[in-house]
Parts: sequence; structure tokens; C-alpha cells
Amino acid sequence: MKKIDVCLSPDLIHLYDLIGQAVVVVDIFRATSCMVTAFAHGAAEILPVEDVALCASYGEQGYLTAAERNGITPEGFDFDNSPFSYQVERVKGAKICVTTTNGTVALRRSASAARVYAGAFLNITRVTDALRAWEGDALIVCAGWKGKPNLEDTLFAGAVIDALHGDFTVADDAALMAWKQYNVASNDLLTAVKNSSHVNRLLGLGIEKDIAFCLEMDRYNVLPYLKNDALSIDETI
Amino acid sequence: MKKIDVCLSPDLIHLYDLIGQAVVVVDIFRATSCMVTAFAHGAAEILPVEDVALCASYGEQGYLTAAERNGITPEGFDFDNSPFSYQVERVKGAKICVTTTNGTVALRRSASAARVYAGAFLNITRVTDALRAWEGDALIVCAGWKGKPNLEDTLFAGAVIDALHGDFTVADDAALMAWKQYNVASNDLLTAVKNSSHVNRLLGLGIEKDIAFCLEMDRYNVLPYLKNDALSIDETI
Repeated sequence: MKKIDVCLSPDLIHLYDLIGQAVVVVDIFRATSCMVTAFAHGAAEILPVEDVALCASYGEQGYLTAAERNGITPEGFDFDNSPFSYQVERVKGAKICVTTTNGTVALRRSASAARVYAGAFLNITRVTDALRAWEGDALIVCAGWKGKPNLEDTLFAGAVIDALHGDFTVADDAALMAWKQYNVASNDLLTAVKNSSHVNRLLGLGIEKDIAFCLEMDRYNVLPYLKNDALSIDETI
Repeated sequence: MKKIDVCLSPDLIHLYDLIGQAVVVVDIFRATSCMVTAFAHGAAEILPVEDVALCASYGEQGYLTAAERNGITPEGFDFDNSPFSYQVERVKGAKICVTTTNGTVALRRSASAARVYAGAFLNITRVTDALRAWEGDALIVCAGWKGKPNLEDTLFAGAVIDALHGDFTVADDAALMAWKQYNVASNDLLTAVKNSSHVNRLLGLGIEKDIAFCLEMDRYNVLPYLKNDALSIDETI
């Protein structure tokens, strides 16, 4: 049977062989939730880059730009890191260059995998459908917070494993622990995450609405995937 | 209030500031369980080294030697990595040089902390008493398996946090997740770990007895600590 595993932090990705695997990158609060939201509202392309200045420079090449560091948006960018900022008309057809503290790092480090998807609770069934259709093993790469594992990305990994139980076997203890963590929290994810350090960090920024939004399941029917350094959606894959 | 955190793998230790902290290194299956057992049976000193050949060379300097790689003991060493091999008369007063796949790495990488203890379920109350008496923050460093987090070390971290709830606040999500993981499993640790990949790896080596032994709580009343590269016990600290 196919195997599914979880990498709890981009700082552990060197321990996993990505070749031939389908990788799902997740940064629930808020990078991949924003990406899914942007594509659902018509974005044409999202280019994740690791550097703020590089991201800004794409503004001169016809891209809209979005940046976040430590939960805050530097001046001079078109979007912040809230999924609500992407629910606007000008997202339609736009190419967007994005840099965030954790999510873009996780995406770039996953680039050698056979498939790289951007996953969130907002599109979780599209993610699990894609993995079910995929013939190889799968790895969920949690963006975490500055290299440290976090609760919400781990819960997402557990939710994916829970949905795929029967199609995949659990490869290792990290996946087993994520699955257990989700089983305990699944009835009320919002309450479960309210104790987490990252959520407390975000609540300090006054974005309660974002937290609740990012925990909604299957609001959108899009599956962003990475091709030649950029994310797009293509209904034929 | 003092804070307690968990580093789920030695490969994440660069993310933690060890200065001024009390660190508990744990490798339940089986390095730190063996060390606690050896001291309880009278060992005078345990020197953890990262290299098998270096460990062997200490045999010529009056040390007994113990080595393990991938769960197996290479030829020519006095002890294997079973806690039962240390329950013998010749351990009394002995200096022992040890190298293991994960536990010795975790110990060496923690050496810059203010205090470094070797913890196991076998001496967990000695560990929690020491942290309660310690005036600074604390970090539990899980040895994991070749850099990947594992279930049993995470469960130990959760058990320590559970015991210290009220004396320490949980610093971050890894600690929160370890605590939750322990709460779910605490009634029957043996059943909980039987699904884990590391335990299945060890069961393949035919050491069921070791697994059950290493999950026993407070069998021993010793607390090994690191000083000048070697572990010893000293009832005055």
C-alpha cells in the first residue's frame, strides 16, 4: 500500500527523500490558506519567493505583490497575509508574487518532489482526492513557525491522514502523532488551536476573523500546484 | 512563571537557546533508559561519544564499552543497548563509554545548557523534582530516530509537562502537542507505542522485554547529569 508521512518542519526536510513523492505544503495561518483563496478568486499565478526585496522587485514586472514577516506586512505591497485581502476583483487574472515567513520557504524546499501541492483546510478534499489518485507515496510538509513545528499545520496533516486511512499506511511516528492530534481536536478545531502559541501570536495582531476562516473545510474547489517555481491551477491534472 | 519547551529532534536544536536552561535529554528506546539503569546498578561514570571507533578505543583506557547502531551492537563491545545488560555486578563502580544512534548525539548537542540531565520513564520523578527545583526555564530534547521525531520520546516529554503543570507554562506548540499526546496515551503507554515505527523496528530485533521495561515509571532513584563531557550522579545536586 502507498505510504503517507509528515515532515513537521521545513528544517527537517533533509531527512526525507522527495523524489517520486507527492508533497503537500501547508501553512494554515496563513500562506497556503491565502493562496487557495486567491486562486478561488481567479488569480492566474502565484510566485513564492524567499526574499522581501526580490518580491518587491516583481512589482515592476507586472506582478501584484504580497509580503509578510512575523505576521506583519511591510509597506509598499499590494496584499497582506489575510485571506480576506484576496477576495477582491483585482485578484482575477492577476500574477502575484508572495513572500512569507514560513510558507514560501516550505514550498521552495519541496520543489524537487514529483508533485507539489498547496494545501489548506479550505481545499482539503481537493488535496485528499489528488493524493488518492496519485500512484506513489505522499508527504505533508508543515511550514511551522521559523523552523519549529506548530499545532495548526500538524492538525491539517492529521486531517489528511484521517481522510486517507485505507488508501495509505502511516509511514512513521510524526504521521502517527499528527493523526492522533487531529483525532483529539477534530470536533472543535477552533478551540483546539486557541491555546497554540502561533494563534496567540496572531491574536495579538487582531486577526480573529482570519483564524476562523482558515479553519473552514472545503470552502474552495481549487488545488494549487507548483510548476517551474510558480503555483497555478490546472483543472486537467 | 518558568517556561518548559520540547525540542522534538536533535536536528531542530539550533532553534533553541540552551544558555541558562535546564535540558533533559531523553531516548526512551533505549539509550537514556540504559544510562539510568547503569547508574542505578552502581556505574561510576558514563561517557557518551558519537563515534563507534572512538568508543572502542576507550576500552584500552579502563572503560567498559557499549555501542549500538540501528538497534544492533557491533562486535567487540562489553554491553549492548538493552537495559538488562546493565543489571550485572561488573557495572558497579565501572566507567562506561557509550555510543548509540540517537541518544548520544542528543546529549552532545545539548552540552551548552546550564544543566543537562538524562531522563527516562525509569527516573521520571527525579527529573521532574530537579526541574521543579531549578530556577530557570527547561527544555526537553527528544533523541528521536535519525533526526525524525518519535512517539516514545514525545510521550516522555508530555509526561514531564503533565507532572509540572502549575510550576511551568507551556512555551510553544511542540510542548503543547507532546502534552496532548501523553494525555491521550497515559492510561496504557505500552499499547500506545505498539503502533510506532520505532517500536516495530525494535520488535523486529526481538526485544519485547526491553520495551515494557523502558516504560516502567520510577523504578530507579537516580538522576544522571552531564559534567565535562561525562555523565555521573551526585546526590548533592
